Amino acid sequence: MEEEQQTIINHHPNISNDILTLTKPLRCIVKLGGAAITCKNEIEKINEENLGIVSSHLRQAMMVSSSTSEKVPGMDWSKRSGVSEISTAVDDFGDQSLLDSSNFIIVHGAGSFGHFQASKSGVHKGGLHLPLVKAGFVATRISVTSLNLEIVRALAREGIPSIGMSPFACGWSTCQRNIAAADTSQVAKAIDSGFVPVLHGDAVLDDLQGCTILSGDVIIRHLAELLKPEYVVFLTDVLGVYDRPPTDSNAVLLREIAVDEDGNWSIVKPALENMNNQVKITVAAHDTTGGMVTKISEAAMIAKLGIDVYIVKAATNHSFRALNGEIRGDIPDDWFGTVIRSSRQNQGSS
Amino acid sequence: MEEEQQTIINHHPNISNDILTLTKPLRCIVKLGGAAITCKNEIEKINEENLGIVSSHLRQAMMVSSSTSEKVPGMDWSKRSGVSEISTAVDDFGDQSLLDSSNFIIVHGAGSFGHFQASKSGVHKGGLHLPLVKAGFVATRISVTSLNLEIVRALAREGIPSIGMSPFACGWSTCQRNIAAADTSQVAKAIDSGFVPVLHGDAVLDDLQGCTILSGDVIIRHLAELLKPEYVVFLTDVLGVYDRPPTDSNAVLLREIAVDEDGNWSIVKPALENMNNQVKITVAAHDTTGGMVTKISEAAMIAKLGIDVYIVKAATNHSFRALNGEIRGDIPDDWFGTVIRSSRQNQGSS
Repeated sequence: MEEEQQTIINHHPNISNDILTLTKPLRCIVKLGGAAITCKNEIEKINEENLGIVSSHLRQAMMVSSSTSEKVPGMDWSKRSGVSEISTAVDDFGDQSLLDSSNFIIVHGAGSFGHFQASKSGVHKGGLHLPLVKAGFVATRISVTSLNLEIVRALAREGIPSIGMSPFACGWSTCQRNIAAADTSQVAKAIDSGFVPVLHGDAVLDDLQGCTILSGDVIIRHLAELLKPEYVVFLTDVLGVYDRPPTDSNAVLLREIAVDEDGNWSIVKPALENMNNQVKITVAAHDTTGGMVTKISEAAMIAKLGIDVYIVKAATNHSFRALNGEIRGDIPDDWFGTVIRSSRQNQGSS
Repeated sequence: MEEEQQTIINHHPNISNDILTLTKPLRCIVKLGGAAITCKNEIEKINEENLGIVSSHLRQAMMVSSSTSEKVPGMDWSKRSGVSEISTAVDDFGDQSLLDSSNFIIVHGAGSFGHFQASKSGVHKGGLHLPLVKAGFVATRISVTSLNLEIVRALAREGIPSIGMSPFACGWSTCQRNIAAADTSQVAKAIDSGFVPVLHGDAVLDDLQGCTILSGDVIIRHLAELLKPEYVVFLTDVLGVYDRPPTDSNAVLLREIAVDEDGNWSIVKPALENMNNQVKITVAAHDTTGGMVTKISEAAMIAKLGIDVYIVKAATNHSFRALNGEIRGDIPDDWFGTVIRSSRQNQGSS
């Protein structure tokens, strides 16, 4: 598998039929959910504890050869506030490549960044000719790119060669809120050069309505279609997908969802009586990109391609195992999370 | 002029012969020199005073209809440290377009951001397979993108619809340190949507040596060739180009330099005896992209195209006049700075 070349057709309308190759197949696309890495009820506040644990989990999952305790030199050489000198670990870097990392892409949501600015101005509804929308577009991008920078920093401190890549700057745009253009060649080049691209939900131009918000979930589906990762992990702030809002004490965690060739999905585990087959989902009022509705439908479209999707609580042992790829076969009984996979793939085990 | 469509051939090898159009011609490309907007001797420190004045100058130069005192609502709606609520000026935005701005592109240098990380690791010399270079690449991008974010913020606070666009993410790359690919279509789209793109010197991939540093000056030359601005302004920390290092008390400010069709340049003003026709230039040891040498040769290549280049001290009345386009004809006697222009254009006046 490692030696195989993976061929990707780039769908950018300006670069049609241009064939990209990844020298090593893509192992995983990870979504860092906004709710998992920010404090959702406090504007522009990062959940530092979760972000630190998630970064450490990612480093361990990526660097197959390194043990849990092995320290990788940090790659954020920024000046810390209150310290006049920059301390780098330049001497810690040997001549040989320590970082035998497998290919990952990270995409993060906005959480308490960006949503305020976007919803105040209605960026998702378009209308760039209106001064308020234009200003909101600028304000939204400032907010989400500042979060991106902090996430890139947290990953770099762990020794992950993370590279921030803003979808707007990469030329991603939409038409009626569906992806119209997305230059993934630069993402592929970054991966081939040994970097871990870090993308994010962003304010983008829309051919029809002027502008909108492109969610991280839609970005992931598009990248998964083009780059065919082995699996996709969504890190959230709850254990997985429930049959009703997780705040409801009767809510039941859905362990396994099967998606057929038409994209229809059904619950495989648990096989409960009286179970509503139609999962009830609530959308937080401030979530301009659709919350759980978007997440499940995007996840189903990925699973349809034969790619396992794990929706799991960030910074837990469950998410660590999912990132490591331990859930790819049978789902362990002591693992809590939601697996969404193709029903074809599933037929043997269920 | 305003009605004219400007046609641009995009040189990206993957998008050859793709024709881009700007609905309004580009008025000006501005370089915010690293030395002008950062404290060069203090690592990762912004010169807030200069950046504030420059942002205000830019707003006045762009918004032709607005007077000096007219307040434009800010577009940075980030949370300020120590303040729990975000105060936005949502009510200050009317229904009509206040921002009848002319087309500008801003490119900034790194100054005391990025240089430390780049020179410590030798990113400009390439060798991405070496862990130190790879880590330095990550560290350099973190540093320069954090400066980019702060500049975008300062401009947005002034009411300029600024949009950060990182050259690496935009797909800019080099071959033997010359530009090999540069997707300017997204820059053009951002301008056409009424935004002011803010690019920067960046760590980029190099086809031959793995990676290098792409300087802001080279980016400007490339953008000038493709987008043909009316004029280009380099904002620096000295009055302009001198015949010897400006720290030398005998240094003479060169007021006008003419560039012929072959790119050779000669001093037009002042017409001094004993003047060294070969300007002496020093390169600061930490300036990994070449400093003044690069600046003058890039400026000469722009002037050769018939585009005036003004090199002028930031945050002064001289730079304000240059940004406003007041130096386009005869050079006023009370204006201090260096004009670099095509000798053809120049023949009538000298």
